Amino acid sequence: MALYGAPVEYALHTLLNLCLAPADIPHSAKDLAEFQQLPVPFMRKLLTQLQRADLVRAGKGVRGGWMLARAPEDISVLAVADAAQGGRHRVFECKNVRARCVLWGDGTPPPSAVSGTCEIHAVMLKAEKELRKSLAAQSLADIAARVNSKTGGASSVVIKGWFNDRFATRRDHKQGAIDE
Amino acid sequence: MALYGAPVEYALHTLLNLCLAPADIPHSAKDLAEFQQLPVPFMRKLLTQLQRADLVRAGKGVRGGWMLARAPEDISVLAVADAAQGGRHRVFECKNVRARCVLWGDGTPPPSAVSGTCEIHAVMLKAEKELRKSLAAQSLADIAARVNSKTGGASSVVIKGWFNDRFATRRDHKQGAIDE
Repeated sequence: MALYGAPVEYALHTLLNLCLAPADIPHSAKDLAEFQQLPVPFMRKLLTQLQRADLVRAGKGVRGGWMLARAPEDISVLAVADAAQGGRHRVFECKNVRARCVLWGDGTPPPSAVSGTCEIHAVMLKAEKELRKSLAAQSLADIAARVNSKTGGASSVVIKGWFNDRFATRRDHKQGAIDE
Repeated sequence: MALYGAPVEYALHTLLNLCLAPADIPHSAKDLAEFQQLPVPFMRKLLTQLQRADLVRAGKGVRGGWMLARAPEDISVLAVADAAQGGRHRVFECKNVRARCVLWGDGTPPPSAVSGTCEIHAVMLKAEKELRKSLAAQSLADIAARVNSKTGGASSVVIKGWFNDRFATRRDHKQGAIDE
């Protein structure tokens, strides 16, 4: 099983869409769900989780909806992954196996055998640090720039157009809460 | 859920025990299981997986049993983790979400939109590479040296003594297959 599952992938694509969509107007959960062909309740749950991590913010009413809560440069892939998984997932969960050894019998292991961090756990913690450092060094803005570079800027133009159209339709129809 | 589960932790401790135990005599699955207070069938399964990855080797008969298949310097934590999990576990499993977008309707996305590696996946692959590089740089010998250094060499002495006693008992009783 992978460390980061589907919620992380959807969260990153959704935030990337918000990053490429017009930044000065809010976007409804319905539009964001439709754009990525996801069920609206799933998108709402995802946005709520991202909101708790201060990655998106929501406004209410006709002019309401979802926007990035920070500049894309200040949203790291690591922050999105942690938020989408509802907390930090570990590379390795130490069960302190060193405390279960025939040498200690059924009793308590001597403090010298279980003090400090287990050397195996320490190796895993170091590797996890490298993984997180790499994810922390990449922002939404970095990814958006590469996507735009790959498509000669077409991605941004097309995505901006789609979300602008949606926003105009919603405004014209004077619907209720934009995030419905 | 963590990327590396209990089998990885048990595999690393078992190989570390083999590394600290006398290297010139074989050790039974029963002894290795008892030492770490694990069920024998679990230990047999673990050793078979480690054998498939060429990390341990087995001999048969009274002088048979399990030994490291390579020098501890040549067994990386990464190799043990992959072997114990029955293959490489990924940091991120890309579901190619970029292919599911309202812009492509129900049809096939244009090749330009799905060619090459997705930029989100690329970030994850880079982070996974850092994680694996860190784990590949650490060997059983490195961990054993740190454990010995922490205990002033006592770990090695005590573990060697326990496994030597077991081997002597088995030899004296002329039991059948040593790995029973």
